[in-house]
Amino acid sequence: MIVLGIDPGYGITGYGLVWYDSGKFKPVEYGTITTSVNAPITDRLPTIYSRICGILDEYRPNVLSIEKLFYGHNQTTVIDVAQARGCVLLAAAMRGIPVREYTPMQVKQAVVGYGRAEKRQVQYMVTKILNLESIPKPDDAADALAIAICHCQNNVMESMLK
Amino acid sequence: MIVLGIDPGYGITGYGLVWYDSGKFKPVEYGTITTSVNAPITDRLPTIYSRICGILDEYRPNVLSIEKLFYGHNQTTVIDVAQARGCVLLAAAMRGIPVREYTPMQVKQAVVGYGRAEKRQVQYMVTKILNLESIPKPDDAADALAIAICHCQNNVMESMLK
Repeated sequence: MIVLGIDPGYGITGYGLVWYDSGKFKPVEYGTITTSVNAPITDRLPTIYSRICGILDEYRPNVLSIEKLFYGHNQTTVIDVAQARGCVLLAAAMRGIPVREYTPMQVKQAVVGYGRAEKRQVQYMVTKILNLESIPKPDDAADALAIAICHCQNNVMESMLK
Repeated sequence: MIVLGIDPGYGITGYGLVWYDSGKFKPVEYGTITTSVNAPITDRLPTIYSRICGILDEYRPNVLSIEKLFYGHNQTTVIDVAQARGCVLLAAAMRGIPVREYTPMQVKQAVVGYGRAEKRQVQYMVTKILNLESIPKPDDAADALAIAICHCQNNVMESMLK
């Protein structure tokens, strides 16, 4: 199974592709989609959408795993983050790729085993789980990988409960 | 000039196309895009996006005029409204159609001449301005027409200031 993890944003969208089978993880690809700081949101959305479409078409993930967005999120950015996130969901939905959403606490719980873990603990565990030589950079890419790993772990749990 | 007004939503998106030239208005088309109440947002976004793309390709509006979304909006729905709105902006941006945003107060000011006008006053003026036989139904379509009219009025003001 290949899972695409997404850390949604309109300035920086982190993405991380993880291959998973029977408890084994392999990193496939990760990085960020960045948009121009001074560009209006209408210029940024097509960039994000096109890049996500490109990633989905190239790697054909089985699932898109994405961080849940809450109303309590940063007030000044939440609307634009949600607008960008809508374009990511659209790209997956247009291809029939299922979407799963996880809260930051669920991601930490799945990756570190502790829902209130610190950012660097999550990054350390992502590096260990994926057998990487160093912590993935930037943070948004590491976060996206964590979100992908979270889905893999939860998928195992779901299968066991069936 | 043809203006497409959009009242964004994820359950109901109102749209209204208005033709405008030198102070003269004509209604072109209006209605709503509705999505299934029980459907997840990932099923709704492709419906909204596809319908908006269809409207843009059929009527080729010069501008898309859309209501501004605020953080103070309904807490339980604002994230999903923003996600749907992002897909509308994407459809316009992918076609190079410029987007203009107006606050509810700006819309009321432009249509009724009073920023705190009531909903039925706006609907009455939309009916008068577009020379319609009755108030456009449902409310979301009437709101979308008001948002389109608002851009036409503001466009005149902008031209006069140049």
